[in-house]
Amino acid sequence: MKTLRSYIAGAWLEASAGFRTLVDPSTEEEVARASSEGIDFGAALDWARGEGGPALRRLTFAERGELLKAMAGVLREGRDELLELSRINNGTTRRDGNFDVGGGSGTLAYYAGLASGLGDRQVLVDGDGVQLTRDESFWGQHVLVPRHGVAVFINAFNFPAWGFAEKAACALAAGMPMIVKPATATALVAERAVEMVIEAGILPPGALQLVCGSTGDLLDRLGPQDVLAFTGSADTARYFRTHPHLVGVNVRLNVEADSLNAAVLGPDVGDDAATMELFLKDVAREITQKSGQKCTAVRRILVPDEHLTLVREHLAERLARVVTGNPADESVTMGPLATAGQLEDALAGAAELAAEAAPVFGDGGRVDGVGSPAGKGYFFAPTLLEAADARAVEAVHRREVFAPLATLLPYDGTAAEAAEIVALGGGTLVTSVYSDDEAWLGRYLAGAGSATGRIYLGSESAAGAAPGSGVALPQTLHGGPGRAGGGEELGGLAGLELYMQRLALQGSRKTVDAVSGRA
Amino acid sequence: MKTLRSYIAGAWLEASAGFRTLVDPSTEEEVARASSEGIDFGAALDWARGEGGPALRRLTFAERGELLKAMAGVLREGRDELLELSRINNGTTRRDGNFDVGGGSGTLAYYAGLASGLGDRQVLVDGDGVQLTRDESFWGQHVLVPRHGVAVFINAFNFPAWGFAEKAACALAAGMPMIVKPATATALVAERAVEMVIEAGILPPGALQLVCGSTGDLLDRLGPQDVLAFTGSADTARYFRTHPHLVGVNVRLNVEADSLNAAVLGPDVGDDAATMELFLKDVAREITQKSGQKCTAVRRILVPDEHLTLVREHLAERLARVVTGNPADESVTMGPLATAGQLEDALAGAAELAAEAAPVFGDGGRVDGVGSPAGKGYFFAPTLLEAADARAVEAVHRREVFAPLATLLPYDGTAAEAAEIVALGGGTLVTSVYSDDEAWLGRYLAGAGSATGRIYLGSESAAGAAPGSGVALPQTLHGGPGRAGGGEELGGLAGLELYMQRLALQGSRKTVDAVSGRA
Repeated sequence: MKTLRSYIAGAWLEASAGFRTLVDPSTEEEVARASSEGIDFGAALDWARGEGGPALRRLTFAERGELLKAMAGVLREGRDELLELSRINNGTTRRDGNFDVGGGSGTLAYYAGLASGLGDRQVLVDGDGVQLTRDESFWGQHVLVPRHGVAVFINAFNFPAWGFAEKAACALAAGMPMIVKPATATALVAERAVEMVIEAGILPPGALQLVCGSTGDLLDRLGPQDVLAFTGSADTARYFRTHPHLVGVNVRLNVEADSLNAAVLGPDVGDDAATMELFLKDVAREITQKSGQKCTAVRRILVPDEHLTLVREHLAERLARVVTGNPADESVTMGPLATAGQLEDALAGAAELAAEAAPVFGDGGRVDGVGSPAGKGYFFAPTLLEAADARAVEAVHRREVFAPLATLLPYDGTAAEAAEIVALGGGTLVTSVYSDDEAWLGRYLAGAGSATGRIYLGSESAAGAAPGSGVALPQTLHGGPGRAGGGEELGGLAGLELYMQRLALQGSRKTVDAVSGRA
Repeated sequence: MKTLRSYIAGAWLEASAGFRTLVDPSTEEEVARASSEGIDFGAALDWARGEGGPALRRLTFAERGELLKAMAGVLREGRDELLELSRINNGTTRRDGNFDVGGGSGTLAYYAGLASGLGDRQVLVDGDGVQLTRDESFWGQHVLVPRHGVAVFINAFNFPAWGFAEKAACALAAGMPMIVKPATATALVAERAVEMVIEAGILPPGALQLVCGSTGDLLDRLGPQDVLAFTGSADTARYFRTHPHLVGVNVRLNVEADSLNAAVLGPDVGDDAATMELFLKDVAREITQKSGQKCTAVRRILVPDEHLTLVREHLAERLARVVTGNPADESVTMGPLATAGQLEDALAGAAELAAEAAPVFGDGGRVDGVGSPAGKGYFFAPTLLEAADARAVEAVHRREVFAPLATLLPYDGTAAEAAEIVALGGGTLVTSVYSDDEAWLGRYLAGAGSATGRIYLGSESAAGAAPGSGVALPQTLHGGPGRAGGGEELGGLAGLELYMQRLALQGSRKTVDAVSGRA
């Protein structure tokens, strides 16, 4: 069995005790083990702060862009190997694995281009300058400069490659060194991805370190210039938010957490419309892709009363086509959940939801998987529930069942009621809204825009090109208010802001322009 | 004795018990009493969410601009009355009181203009749209929409008028209703300022409420769409940051807290240079203005070894000219600290600093004030300390003494050492740097830019116009990293972001432009 290693202060470390076992979720066979015991986190931080940070800050944005380009290339070249690791540790089909791995290299490549476009500079100029007195002898200009600390990434189990890459793209472009801590249960892909980057000798010493296992006393050593970027559960987020040391020194924290994403069908969409076809195709995919283990997956489906029967039947039909099983079998279109714990949690969540919403397809239970031994593997039946009254249910709006399960919620077809129901989720990452009625969409935005971080507008005019609401594109923000964590990642240049300090420069225009590099 | 009232759900309420007494800090005479006992905070939130929010969101930015313009006018017209209240409750000279009151109306007027300039819209378009596929059938655009909650302001004692106005300007422009809770000890000015606005009938019902006294169970009733904007001590900030309910529902929190601001003299500045004159004038004012009770006041003064004697002598000379006393006496140029508690805390802090830095002017103690009875009033002697080794002291970089006290810190004249010493403060609101050497300033920015929220560049080319580093102008950001709270207020349009949700719209360009109002 492979022992995962950590990369700390320039050396690959293998622990000798304290292991946690990683398994293939399709077969429950052990595939690796990981432990961070013995890591000197003080040395890791010293290396990042003392060498990695200064080295990255000496580079221009364009030079950092070159690093990102090389990283994207390495992950692209290593794709097949990473997809194989994803299959045996994340239980992903090739397509689902590539959503993670290809998404990661794509995000790095996008930020490579963005950083290159900023050119030969080290200070990011933010907006226009502003005259503060009667003439240019007192002038203001906002700029962004890299934070002089370490960016710690605590990533979720579902995106070991993309989760690393999307955070690394922004932190590196900004000029911050990184310590990556993937979720232990699925660290196989992340470990190899980081190893590929390290082996390629792309980054300056201290820019990238890896922790496989727990974080030890790392958090207690962070300071006011450090950043903690977390993706995971709301419960763990609460732990970080109230961690006495993190609060005491005010470590900058970004959280991307639970999200009861909704898809909303507008009342104008006819049975045979292209927008209806897009809605059905998108929603079925957003329930089952990556076995529903996406923070952007659709959990709630709002359908006008008059369309409910049609939507119910069509979605059930599409879910019936899903072949659940071991992705090693080529007929399989959906793999298992990633861990025994995830299965247990999803089964409990499904039972909680089933108490207030009736199953219309699937039963929210475990199933045997095609190509897997009977009784083995963390397979979850694709499931569609339906609530009679969207406002009378509570768990449906609160409990994120991280599995291929969603709930149909009828509504009266008004934008106001759709907005009200979606907002019951307490803040989401994304809402997809399907309508060709722009006035209706405008009313929806006014009613529930503030309850989400992204609105995906499914319409006839987008039907040919729209990639689905589940993709977190690097050009647009990823994050949402309230329960979703209140964070902001990606979104083009905005993605760098987490890793930089925005400050105002004030002085004569001459001095301000010279110091900001604008002159 | 006047009893302060709260304005809740459309009615002025006077409590009958639970009072705290407000005094004139120059004489210790009682001037008012305040209590929030009996307030139904649930009703306050219902009124704001049910009436104020919808009414404000129905307005365009330009219409909200009109409200702000009227508010600015009301505070401007009421200035003399507010300055008098400031004198008897904040102990301010007319000039210091106007820094608060005039600053407040000026900030409202600035945001009135900004909102008007956004015109007849309700959705704020954020940056350029971006093409996400091969053609415009999939397009992205970031927008900002008002949060559907309540903005709660918990303000500091030192700026009862400006603290209300700067937050109100941004929240109202954004479209959020407000509940204002001034620091009880100096609520006289804030109560009257809010009363003036309410009496003028400017705002729609539910847009503005006032709590004089404690917050009762208000915080426990906030939800994920609400905002808590806090200005005050790092200790209180920690309370809010770890408040179980606030964390649980993820209320958006902005903190502006302690700040060990620094002024740095560059090595190039000659004894007779205009920049030296600016430095000395600015620093002396930034120590004593508002009796040092500004979050932006200079607490640490970095001076190259070779200039230390000159700077010490000149600053001592300027501090010697300060006349401390009751502002009712026209000869007085600096009033008392605002409360007995503030004096006690400042005396304790001064003693802590004096253990590692020697007094070169003043003794960090209480004094009697001109025009006040002996032994009465919270007067603090203007004090200059000096540390032999800027890196050997600890309290100087940690303990914010909220009084007219600052510490001279010699350094070797390099930008690198200045940056290192300033960063020991753990994050500040503002740093003022005096130099005409642009390359040196660039190195300083690279070294310590990330440790502050604003850098004020004092130079010959700015000498005639620069207003001093202590002014938080609405055009530029106010906030700083780490100990300073990590928040962002003001800064032009950026100031609205706290009260809005940024989200990405994705869809065909046609739909996105129509829904965002760009088309």
